[in-house]
Amino acid sequence: MAEETRALHDEISVDCVIFGFDFEKLNVLLVDRVMFDVSTGKKIIDDLTLTGNHVYVDEDLDEAASRVLFDLTGLTDIYLEQFKSYGSPSRINCEKDRAWLEFNGRDPDKRIVTIGYYSLLATDKITLEWKGRNVSWYPVDDIKELAFDHMQILNEALDSLRTKLLHEPVGFELLPEKFTLSQLQRVYEIVLGKELDKRNFRKKVSRMNYLIPLDEKQKGVPHKPARLYSFNRDIYEATKEDVMDFVV
Amino acid sequence: MAEETRALHDEISVDCVIFGFDFEKLNVLLVDRVMFDVSTGKKIIDDLTLTGNHVYVDEDLDEAASRVLFDLTGLTDIYLEQFKSYGSPSRINCEKDRAWLEFNGRDPDKRIVTIGYYSLLATDKITLEWKGRNVSWYPVDDIKELAFDHMQILNEALDSLRTKLLHEPVGFELLPEKFTLSQLQRVYEIVLGKELDKRNFRKKVSRMNYLIPLDEKQKGVPHKPARLYSFNRDIYEATKEDVMDFVV
Repeated sequence: MAEETRALHDEISVDCVIFGFDFEKLNVLLVDRVMFDVSTGKKIIDDLTLTGNHVYVDEDLDEAASRVLFDLTGLTDIYLEQFKSYGSPSRINCEKDRAWLEFNGRDPDKRIVTIGYYSLLATDKITLEWKGRNVSWYPVDDIKELAFDHMQILNEALDSLRTKLLHEPVGFELLPEKFTLSQLQRVYEIVLGKELDKRNFRKKVSRMNYLIPLDEKQKGVPHKPARLYSFNRDIYEATKEDVMDFVV
Repeated sequence: MAEETRALHDEISVDCVIFGFDFEKLNVLLVDRVMFDVSTGKKIIDDLTLTGNHVYVDEDLDEAASRVLFDLTGLTDIYLEQFKSYGSPSRINCEKDRAWLEFNGRDPDKRIVTIGYYSLLATDKITLEWKGRNVSWYPVDDIKELAFDHMQILNEALDSLRTKLLHEPVGFELLPEKFTLSQLQRVYEIVLGKELDKRNFRKKVSRMNYLIPLDEKQKGVPHKPARLYSFNRDIYEATKEDVMDFVV
C-alpha cells in the first residue's frame, strides 16, 4: 500500500534510539523539533527528539521500527532490539509537548504507548533531513534534555545496551567489518563508561574464538599499523552454548 | 476510584507470566478459558491463558501488571520484569480467540498491544478463582499450547528469565527466605534446563559474597539435614559493580 494512503495508529508508536560510534565516542541520532509562534514569529520550541513514528494500522511493531531505520539510513538488516515500552497516562504533560502535538493535529490528551527500540549503526551514512526536520549525530554524554520522556528512554536504552554488551558480542555492530583490537577495546570502554586494563582485555579477547585475525594491517595511520580483525557470527552462534556461564 | 467505575483501555493490555518453583520443577500460573455453545450447550472452548488484563485508562503499565499480581496473590512487592511487547495487527486471528472476544463484548478486529511481564513467586499461596475463572499452577514443561499468542509469550518470557539468571541473582526470588545449596542449584538447573556439576556449582557459590550461611539446618527431612542460607540483597547491590564482568 502506498504510504500516503496508509493510516497511522493514533495511540501506538515506536521510538528508536540509534547509537553510532566514531572510534572516539558513542553518538545518538536525534531530530530537531522547532516551532514558531504564528502571531509573533518567535521560536517557541527548539529542542531535540529521538527518531520515531506512529505505527501504521496494518503494521507490526518491529516493522515500524525497521521502517524508521530504513527511512533514515536506506539500510535494512540493522541491529535492532526492542527493550522497553512506555505508556504512562501522563507521559505527555509538559506545555511544549502538548503544543507540539496540537500543532501537528494530534490530541495531547490521548495516551500514546511507545515501544522503545535501540539500534547499533556502524555507518555514519544517514539522511540529513527526515520528514522536513534536521537529523544529526550527537554525543550521548552531551545530551542532558530531550523532548517528551525521550531522555528517560535514551537512558534506559543505554542501560540495556550496557547489560547486553556484558554478555553478548554486540559491540561488533558498532564497528566496520575490519577493526583493530584497540578499536574494539574502545567500544567496550565507551559503552561501559570505564577504562579497561589493556592486558586483561587482550586476555579476554584471546578467548573469543569468533574473533578472526586477518592477514591485513591498518593503512594510512600515523603510528605503527595494527593488525585487523573480523567478527565471525557463525562461529559465535555455533559455540556460544559452551561459553555461556553465569556470572556471580 | 472504585474499580467498577474505571474504564478499561480497549487496545492496551498486560500479560503476566507468573513463574513459581516447587523445589522440583518450574511452574506457571494459568487461567482456564471455557465457553459453551449457547444453543447446544456443548463446550466449544476449553483451554488456558496467561494471567492478564486490559489496563485502566488512568493506569500506568507497571501498575496494571502489579494489580493483576495483587488480585491473584494478595501480595505487593513481587519480582516483576517487563520483557517484551506484542502488537502484531494479526495477533488475534484464530476462530476460538475471535469467538471468545466477541462473547466478552470485545471487537476481535481491534488490535491489542500487550505488554509482557514475567514475575517470580516464592509462594504457592494464590487465589484459586479469578474473575470467575479457575487459576492453577502448571509445570512449564507440560505446556504445549495456549490461547491467543500466549505460548509465544511464555516461551519468550522463559528465554528472558534464563538470560537474566545467567547474569543476576534472581533465582533467590523463587526460593523461601532460607534455603539449602541443593535447592539453589536446582533452581539454576531447572531454569537453565541443564544439569550442573555439583563441585563447580559450589565453587561459584563460594564466590557469592551475598549468600549468607545461617546457624541453622533443615528440619524434618529424611536425610542428613543441610545447612540453610539466605540471600542478602544489600551486599549484592553494594558490591555488584566489582563482580560485574563481561562474558566472552
